This record gives sequence, C-alpha cells and structure tokens, in this order.
Amino acid sequence: MLLISASNSGFSVRKASGERLNNPSGAKVSEDLLNKVVSLAKRRGFIFQSSEIYGGLKSAYDYGPLGVELKRNISNCWWESMVHAREDVVGLDAAIFMHPRVWKASGHLAEFSDPLVDCLNCGGRFRADKAPTLPPESPVTFRAGGKSDGDELQGTVSDRGYICPLCNCPNLSAERQFNLMFRTSIGPVDPLDKAIKKIVHGRMNAKEIRKTVEEALQPSAIYLRPETAQAIFVQYQNVQQSLGMKIPFGIAQIGKAFRNEIITEKFIFRTCEFEQMELEFFVEPGTEGDWLDYWSKARMQWWQTFANSTENFRLRPHEADELAHYASACYDIEYAYPWGWDELEGIASRTDYDLRKHSEESGSKLHFFDQQKEDPETGKPGYRYIPYVIEPSAGLTRGLLVYLLDAYTEEGGKDADGNDKIRKVLKLHPRLAPIKAAILPLVKKEGLPERAEKLSLEFFQSGINARFDAQQSIGKRYAKHDEIGTPFCITVDHQTLEDETVTIRDRDSTEQQRISASQAVQFVLDGLKK
Amino acid sequence: MLLISASNSGFSVRKASGERLNNPSGAKVSEDLLNKVVSLAKRRGFIFQSSEIYGGLKSAYDYGPLGVELKRNISNCWWESMVHAREDVVGLDAAIFMHPRVWKASGHLAEFSDPLVDCLNCGGRFRADKAPTLPPESPVTFRAGGKSDGDELQGTVSDRGYICPLCNCPNLSAERQFNLMFRTSIGPVDPLDKAIKKIVHGRMNAKEIRKTVEEALQPSAIYLRPETAQAIFVQYQNVQQSLGMKIPFGIAQIGKAFRNEIITEKFIFRTCEFEQMELEFFVEPGTEGDWLDYWSKARMQWWQTFANSTENFRLRPHEADELAHYASACYDIEYAYPWGWDELEGIASRTDYDLRKHSEESGSKLHFFDQQKEDPETGKPGYRYIPYVIEPSAGLTRGLLVYLLDAYTEEGGKDADGNDKIRKVLKLHPRLAPIKAAILPLVKKEGLPERAEKLSLEFFQSGINARFDAQQSIGKRYAKHDEIGTPFCITVDHQTLEDETVTIRDRDSTEQQRISASQAVQFVLDGLKK
Repeated sequence: MLLISASNSGFSVRKASGERLNNPSGAKVSEDLLNKVVSLAKRRGFIFQSSEIYGGLKSAYDYGPLGVELKRNISNCWWESMVHAREDVVGLDAAIFMHPRVWKASGHLAEFSDPLVDCLNCGGRFRADKAPTLPPESPVTFRAGGKSDGDELQGTVSDRGYICPLCNCPNLSAERQFNLMFRTSIGPVDPLDKAIKKIVHGRMNAKEIRKTVEEALQPSAIYLRPETAQAIFVQYQNVQQSLGMKIPFGIAQIGKAFRNEIITEKFIFRTCEFEQMELEFFVEPGTEGDWLDYWSKARMQWWQTFANSTENFRLRPHEADELAHYASACYDIEYAYPWGWDELEGIASRTDYDLRKHSEESGSKLHFFDQQKEDPETGKPGYRYIPYVIEPSAGLTRGLLVYLLDAYTEEGGKDADGNDKIRKVLKLHPRLAPIKAAILPLVKKEGLPERAEKLSLEFFQSGINARFDAQQSIGKRYAKHDEIGTPFCITVDHQTLEDETVTIRDRDSTEQQRISASQAVQFVLDGLKK
Repeated sequence: MLLISASNSGFSVRKASGERLNNPSGAKVSEDLLNKVVSLAKRRGFIFQSSEIYGGLKSAYDYGPLGVELKRNISNCWWESMVHAREDVVGLDAAIFMHPRVWKASGHLAEFSDPLVDCLNCGGRFRADKAPTLPPESPVTFRAGGKSDGDELQGTVSDRGYICPLCNCPNLSAERQFNLMFRTSIGPVDPLDKAIKKIVHGRMNAKEIRKTVEEALQPSAIYLRPETAQAIFVQYQNVQQSLGMKIPFGIAQIGKAFRNEIITEKFIFRTCEFEQMELEFFVEPGTEGDWLDYWSKARMQWWQTFANSTENFRLRPHEADELAHYASACYDIEYAYPWGWDELEGIASRTDYDLRKHSEESGSKLHFFDQQKEDPETGKPGYRYIPYVIEPSAGLTRGLLVYLLDAYTEEGGKDADGNDKIRKVLKLHPRLAPIKAAILPLVKKEGLPERAEKLSLEFFQSGINARFDAQQSIGKRYAKHDEIGTPFCITVDHQTLEDETVTIRDRDSTEQQRISASQAVQFVLDGLKK
C-alpha cells in the first residue's frame, strides 16, 4: 500500500516489489535520519528549497554555499576518474535544447509517458502503474470525498485491478498517457496566434480545437531533455571522428535533465530538475556482456570509495520484466536509503538500439569501421558495425543525498561540564568535504586573527578551499565544523606567536596535535589524498 | 546599416553607436578569423552544432571533448578566484525552475521583452530597437518582395523613424512586445484541456479565446530563468543567515540561462541557451561607487590574466541612456571581436532595486542588520538597511569564444623540405588548455608505446589531463597538438630506453629540450603555474 511513496520514474519498467522497501539488515538506518539531514542541509547552507521566500517551488532545490561545493566535489571526482584518468573516455557538454526529431527517434515523444488516472471520489491524481492492486470485482469500502468523516461507501474493483492510493475508491477516470517531457516554444513566434485565428472562424468541436492547437504548436515546439544520454548518441560521429577514437571508447557527460514527474518525493531524491553523470561506452557487438560486468563493478567501487558504510551499497541485476525497451541487461546500484533499498545508478546494456534509431531517422551512418578486423559474416578484411553501448548512468544530485546520509553521524559524549551531549558529525570523505580546513584564531584579539589570516592566505594560494572563522567560542566553532564535515580545524593560539606552531584537530577522532604552522598546508594536502 | 549584426540582448537599453563597430586600431583582427575559429572548433572537437545529424538546431551548440575541458577550465578559474580565494564570497547553485512570482517581482514578466516588427514587403521579422533609423517622411527605394530582381518600389519612412533591416522597406506591421522568457508547464496537468472545454461552449472572439487560454496556462506556467542573478537575490537571506556572512559579502553562481532571442548570431556569441558567471556583491549604501570601481578593475584584470593580447579588452562606462532600469551605473568589459568592440561582461551597480522588489513582493525582510554601526538617520546604535548590490556578470560561453579568438595564431615557417607552410597554433593560457601534455612515442613499435603509456600513467596519477597519442607521424602529432593548444609535447624515443630521458617541446617556441623522464610531471606542473 506504500508503493506510491517508493515509486520510480517512468520509461523503463521497474519492479516495485515489497522487498525493496525493507531496511537492509544490520544497516544503521534511523527513521528520522532523512529529517535530520534535511534540517542540517538547510540550517548549514547545503540545500534550500527553491524560491522559499515565495512559499517555495515544489520539488525544486537550490544548492547553498556548502551544497554547491559538495556537488562540485562529487562531479569533479567522477569527471577525473571517468575522463581524465582514462585514455578511452572523452567528455561532452551538450545543450539542453535539441532538435525535436532527436526525441522522435529515441522514442521519448511517443513513449516517455506515465499512465495518469483521476479518482472520481477524492479528486486525487495518480499513476495507474503505481496504484495498489486488488483482484477485479473485489469489494472495497471507502469514505465519501476521501474524508475521514465522509459517509462509508461500498464499491467493486474494476477489470483494471487497482484502486485510488489516496482513498481506496475503485471508481476512477480512464487512464491517459501523460508525457513527462517539458515542452516550450522557440523562435520569435507566438504559436497560439495562428491557432486562435483558425479556431474563431472554424466552428470546431473540442477534438478539432485540440488538433488545431497541436498543429500550431508543433513547428516551434522544443523540449527540455529528459536525459543527457541522447546528446551523446547524436554527437557520436562528431566526437569519434574529430578525436580519432577507436572502439572500445566512451563519451562522458554531466548535465541537467528535466522530467515533469507526476510524483516528486523524498527531498532531492526525485525532482523535476536533476543532474546526471552519464557515460555511453561504445563496444564491439558480442563484447557487451564483459563490459557490462566491468562497468558495474567499476562504478560500484567508485561509489564505495567515498563512503563510510560500504555495506549500504548493493549491485542488483534487473529481472527480465524490469528491463527498459532498449536494454538487454541492466544492473542497478542501490543504496539503503532511510525508506529502503532504492536506485542510485543504473548500468544498462543498451545494445545498438539508440545509434540504430538515430541512423534510421537522420540518414547518417552511425557506424564504426575497424580496419584491423575481419567482417565476421563475409570473412573479408575490415569490419563495419553499429557499436553496442554500455551506459553507466548516475544521479549526481541523488549521489549528493546518498553521501549526506552516509556521512551523518551522532556520537554520545560529555561536554566541558561533564554533562551528556551529542556530537553531530558529517563524516564526509575529505575529497568531498566542502571546506577542507578551518583556520581559527583562539580568540578575536591579541594579534591572533592577523596571524590566522596569514595562514588562510597560504591555504588559498595552494588551491585548498579553507575558511577563516573567528566568530563564537572555539568549542562552538569546532562543533560547527564537525557538523559541516570540515576534516581539519587549525587553531592559532598564543603559543603560535611564540614558537610558530598551531594545533590541528581531526574531525573524526577529535584528537589534536601540535605541528609547525609552516607544515599545515602540507598536512592537509596529505590528508586529502587518503 | 549593420547595426542588426552587432545587436545586444534585451532588457537593459543599449546604445548601438557606430563607434562600437569599428575595429580597435592596432589590434590584430582578421576578417575571416571567426570563420577559422569556427572551422577549427568543429574539426578538432571543441564545438559542434547541436543535433547536427538532424540538420542542426539553430543557435544551439554542443561542447565537444576539447570544448568541455576549455569551458571547465575557464569556469574553474573563475570559481577559484571568486569563491575559494576570497573570504567574502560564497557560492550558490540554484535550480533553473523558480517560482513564477520571482519574475513578477524582478520585472521580467512585464518588461523582459523586445519590440518585434514584421516587414510587409519581404516578410522579415526584426527588432524595432535594432532597425536602421531614418528621419520620418524620408523617401526610400526598395525592391518588391525583398528580392534583388523585384520591381523597384518607392516609399516614405513613417513616424516611427526606421525601416526594415533586410530590404529597406518602410511599410511595417505594428510593434508588439515579445517576451524573451521561455515558458513551459509543470505538474501532472494539461493546461489546455480546461481552456478548450470553455472555448467550445463559449462562442468567443479571438481576444476572448486568447484570454481564456492565458488564464488556463497561468496556474501551471513556469519559466526558464533568463538570468542566474535573481536566484541569488531570492536566497540572499538563507545564505547570509546560514553562513553568518557580514556585509560586504558576495554570492557567486555559474549556471545556464535561457532567452528566446529574436536574433541569434555570431556562433556562440548570442544563443538562446548560454552560461553565466555572476557575482552579486552586497554592500552598505553609499559605498557602491568604490565597490563598482574595485570590481570593474578586478574583473578586467582577471580576463587579461589569461589573454595574449590584453589590448583587445577594454572597460567602457555606460552612458546614462544605456543604463538598465535597475542600475545607477555600469561598466562593460568589451572585447575586440572580429566585428568590433562588443560585450563580454557587465559590472552594474544595481542599487537596492532587486532586494527591495523581492522584499515587497514576498513580504520577507531582506535586510542586513549591522550591530557595530549607528543608524545614520537616528544616530542610535545598530544600522538596519537593504544592501546595495554590485554585479559583475560575465558570459562563460562568450568568454570561451573570446579566448579561442585571442589564442588563434597563424605563423609563417618552412616545412622539412624547405617549403613555406603555415603553423596554426592555439596559444591558450596553460591553465585553460584542454590537454596539458601530450605523451608521444616516436614510433609505434620497439617498446616505445609501452614506455610512453607508463609515463601517461604518472601524469594521470598527478591529476594532470594528459593524452597518450601514438597515431600518425611525430610531425603531424606536433601540428595537431599545436592546433588544439597543448602546451607541452613529451616524446619518448629510443634514447629514452637507454638513459630515461625524454624530449619536451614547448608549444609557443617549438623549442625542444631533453629532460629526465622522472622530471616530466614536475616540469609540466611548473609550466601550469605561470
């Protein structure tokens, strides 16, 4: 009955089995962990709701001063490992606007939609494929208007075999397909002008008006991309030829995508505007199985590199009935979110589906010609084929949520007066931490701020994102930097003025040691390499 | 008559004086420089037209493997200098989707439009404010249908004082305001459904239909942001409070913005989808003049840091009639493009216009309270005020074009046989160069590729974007890397196997020296610091 709150986005068919809602055994999953992370994210400047002073825009989020650094660090780590550290992958950054025929070829115009249903009792709108199922003709009891004080009514489940997830009513509107792409209009035209002129003079019925309007909108219609992947397929040839890439090779891209989701949920887990980190890796037909295994393991390892609780990540092969229409096999990297195992990244074997579709629709030959190989059919030298594709497709914004959840820790302890207190620590991997080092004068006088500022400057010049912080007591500053995940706190005290040493405090152990101020930059640099 | 090709985007009123079209004296400006850069950008994988296999999407561009690296390098340099190296600036990364009331408060819904006119002779559509001007009642000669073989016709310039920029015809449609924001619809609704039902039953005229449609679209209407700045104003309070920032301080953001430009032009100079690098710097009223000077100089210096021809940048104060409605003063940083001086960045003194408008519209108090100061009016301790804003707003994609133009060089020389040949070099600043070092085995045999790959690995591990390249002759590889701006070519030859030395070739001087292979990484790192 809770399926609606663990729903997945459309297009590929997903299995919503009860198992995925369970918490993994042994994993530290607190019921209110999500609430705590949401609260910290706002209070400390990681994530704000969009347009909050206007009551907020549902499901849109802004990344604040610390959130933008965390997001940049995750995406830079991905880019370095995928593009810079590999000879066989190059990057791309395509426009969000693309030619509408891209979406015709890819199938998104016709098929990227969810079945939408209205409840005739409570007026709720929901996805038919996510509604609670019951056998046809089962008797159901529900309340009039979906209200707890409404009259009790009786009904019978229809042949469609589902009921309203909000009020259990079986009396529902017809299903209609709702396309998830955002549509807008480009060019110095008002497409409705033309339609309105025709409608006024045409004495049309609703269907004819709809057709007239759609025909008027069509020439200037343009869509916000619902995935970054298609831009890579469309530019496959330009990239391959301009860089002289040889199969196997990949094209990587980080960018925004937009889906007019019927249900947005769980903070930044599912939003209409989100960021993807996608690789399309082009391989010779027949080798896709090995590459699927390779990338599934490589990507799993990558996520775990920056995590504290590696057991909260798992690799789950898709069952046959979950596969998208373009995929021959797929793995999901799942994370143990507070609401259970759910998707973080998908690694799909997309066959030659996309390049073949774009070849057909555009008339361009999106082949690869391997001079070194024989054609397996004719036995002649030279093998021309449409490459197969392995696609590791990760959610950047979803990854950010995962690392916040993974890092959030509460530790019991005592305060200076011996009272119990809880230490909140964000145990982010040092490479992901928004601020790498806090430079803290012990007090705001006696030359300590000036000495600390001088040290800050050294950090800036080394390209380390450090932060000078002189407000509040030293204890409060330590607590703040624990809470935002700063791995190192460097304190300039009176002894510094005497012997040029500073204390450096480790976020996780809270242990402090005294080191030479001149070694502080190198100490932090070494800590970031771990 | 050429004004239309040097037009600026809307909203702020710009002066389109003839002077701005002139080439700066003494500057190296080639008439076909732009064509050469466009050609190189496509051939070498910097910039492709979007959806090229579908005939291209007008005015949308994709950044290929080298373009994405160049763009990342520019934006990272900006971020480092604006955010990481300063205590008084923090970052933000807001959603493209914002609450529609943001655009009501900012004035974009009512005023962000261009006056659009249709020519009744040739059918061209153009911006009235960019059309060639002539005194009212001047006689004009033009060709029927705008065709060179059309009949010669006579006409008289109307009171509006301009003619069609395409065919010189003075017979024009009325001006109508065309809003430049892209509109789409959010949520699981089809806004037209409701409108169509009303229209069918309503026996409406065109005006009533238009009103009914607009009313139906309004509740779910959402806009693609036409600038990144407003998100910063809307989140001013969240950022200031969560980070405890004190005036003066700034919020920096890099992100996409969208304008449905009537005229898109000059490659990536003016496109409907573009990227901005914006800083909103909040200051105490009365100090804005000094901060405007400070930021104008700082930003000018920043652009010049990475340029070869610093004389191609200039700082131009806006004249009173150029100022946008929100600005009290403004400087443009202009570049000597092949078509003349034109905008690269604007540094505007925006007063308290935006924060005041958002305070009024939202009811939130977007003030700053300075405990340390006296209220200048009452003389009492504590000064509460709406901050003034200095806004350095740069085009990232425009900056990329500028640095390509600045770097493109052709040098005369001789080939190996003593024949004249031209060396094409992209003299990009080493920090901007997409590939920092090419690792080249002299030949593709005798163990040289293996030794070179080993060296590549050292570069990868040092976080340097290096590229192993074994295709073609060494001369062709040098030529290729000159053309894409690789500062260092490191060649592994037979001597390397004997004494562990390599040659390292400098892109700009073409001089080679022999160094120890073990010093190659450090040599390049030092070169990047220049």
